[in-house]
Amino acid sequence: MAALKILIPDSIALTVTADVDAVVYDIEADIPVEHRDAEVLVVWHNSGERLAHAARVLPRLRLVQALASGADAVLGAGFSSDVRICSGRSLHDGPVAEHALALVLSAVRRLDALQVAQQEHRWDEDIIRDQAAPETSGLYTLDGARVTIWGFGSIAATLAPLLRSLGAHVRGIARSAGTRAGFEVLADSDAAQVLSDTDVLISILPATDDTADLIDDTVLAALPSGAVFVNVGRGATVDEHALLGALRSGRLRAAAVDVTKTEPLPASDPLWGAPNLVITPHVAGNRPVGAAKLVDENVTRLLAGDELVNQVRP
Amino acid sequence: MAALKILIPDSIALTVTADVDAVVYDIEADIPVEHRDAEVLVVWHNSGERLAHAARVLPRLRLVQALASGADAVLGAGFSSDVRICSGRSLHDGPVAEHALALVLSAVRRLDALQVAQQEHRWDEDIIRDQAAPETSGLYTLDGARVTIWGFGSIAATLAPLLRSLGAHVRGIARSAGTRAGFEVLADSDAAQVLSDTDVLISILPATDDTADLIDDTVLAALPSGAVFVNVGRGATVDEHALLGALRSGRLRAAAVDVTKTEPLPASDPLWGAPNLVITPHVAGNRPVGAAKLVDENVTRLLAGDELVNQVRP
Repeated sequence: MAALKILIPDSIALTVTADVDAVVYDIEADIPVEHRDAEVLVVWHNSGERLAHAARVLPRLRLVQALASGADAVLGAGFSSDVRICSGRSLHDGPVAEHALALVLSAVRRLDALQVAQQEHRWDEDIIRDQAAPETSGLYTLDGARVTIWGFGSIAATLAPLLRSLGAHVRGIARSAGTRAGFEVLADSDAAQVLSDTDVLISILPATDDTADLIDDTVLAALPSGAVFVNVGRGATVDEHALLGALRSGRLRAAAVDVTKTEPLPASDPLWGAPNLVITPHVAGNRPVGAAKLVDENVTRLLAGDELVNQVRP
Repeated sequence: MAALKILIPDSIALTVTADVDAVVYDIEADIPVEHRDAEVLVVWHNSGERLAHAARVLPRLRLVQALASGADAVLGAGFSSDVRICSGRSLHDGPVAEHALALVLSAVRRLDALQVAQQEHRWDEDIIRDQAAPETSGLYTLDGARVTIWGFGSIAATLAPLLRSLGAHVRGIARSAGTRAGFEVLADSDAAQVLSDTDVLISILPATDDTADLIDDTVLAALPSGAVFVNVGRGATVDEHALLGALRSGRLRAAAVDVTKTEPLPASDPLWGAPNLVITPHVAGNRPVGAAKLVDENVTRLLAGDELVNQVRP
């Protein structure tokens, strides 16, 4: 019996050690005809168009292993319903948590505003005063800040202890309530009551039908005036008109988003120039850590008929 | 016997509970004649000129309690040699560690460069590529980075575990070698060998005769090409010409300084426009946490004849 054929994208260095026939393919070209008998497709940075092509030409496909933390692009590509789809979410816990922390600290400490002052060769006396004044100093630190993480999966479980180490009071919101990784997590249905007690809201929500535009006017209005919002989840979860409005009105003190609805964000988009907003170009998790190990693990499980890791469909 | 008189600066809200005669004074005015019998002077944001005035007009003074983490301004103000001087260093461990972490993450993740791209409405494909490419991705994260903290006191002991949580390998350099707070600390005399293995150098050095211009051409040249430098100590410890040169030549990948030799930094200073440099206006520790407790403690100890906390002179 021939070894299982697995297609490895050329967009990442990945050495698979499982006993399979591993073939590297060009993510920007058609899958070569001689490799259309592959049973496993690993994808990383493939375009929607290329994914749709793969969905049409791989009749023996059993598993699509995405390396991105969200598998939404793969889920929407038209793969047959009996093809299993697994995400790479566990690969991004460290990198995304680190980037989220960088964005939260930058927003709270107002490094963005200080950079503008630096460009003007200006020692920013306003921020010096505000961050020292007893009535506003609490805004400039995570020490004592009430931080809520919406979407409390493995990235949040990595991020939350870091925030707690800095003195923040951390809670989560997720589909179901409970205690995760030592943190109180409330259900989506109780979001309103948490939001009104939130100084910093961090979204790590995936893009699903349920989360589309979930962060909207209502959510942003539920936050106390002067709150900070950070998104390292997916751009589809945020109503960007609402975000823009909350920044322009000053209701949000600052925000930072690593993801936007359209990526790359078009040069004409008003979000670029929104006040007190930091935009990073989807770089939080752009570097899967342990990808080869995950692929090996899931291929081995697939061959053994075991449950897969990070399976998101069916 | 009259209670000990203690002068409290009007630059901070401070409620002293020890059994003393606490008088609030204007840090920008002469000490009122009727309060020149004070035995304890608490200082916060006093100018050098005002400190020198206080040194001349308070004949009964026994203790100057600074609330800043470094007491260099007080030490240079001309107080009589029998006046004890205590710093507020322990008050700034959390705030300074938090700011240092913000600056390190911003420099490593290049949030400053991404902000320039944002101002140009540009999705920065260069950084996206570099931070994903196997040969450069390690530069964009603290995970696996070799971090050296020069000046390993209580701030470093707060900062180092945070960096370790993010995957960094942390060592210290200090006057004497040893293990502090669970971290290996090497002696100043062994600095050269540590620096050559350092991806991120963080200075938390105080300003003393020994540390003046300590971070010079030699130190910066000892770092591997592409290293990052962060200063949350004192501006006097850095040869700013050397820093400017290392940034302009690209030897340093990025740097971030919260302190400069002259503060406020004059608008004409070339440091403002140095490439890949973040300047924040001495805001790391501009917010003593637990100041009243420290003052109470030291006043109580002074009255009891006990050793003082954070005494830096005599």
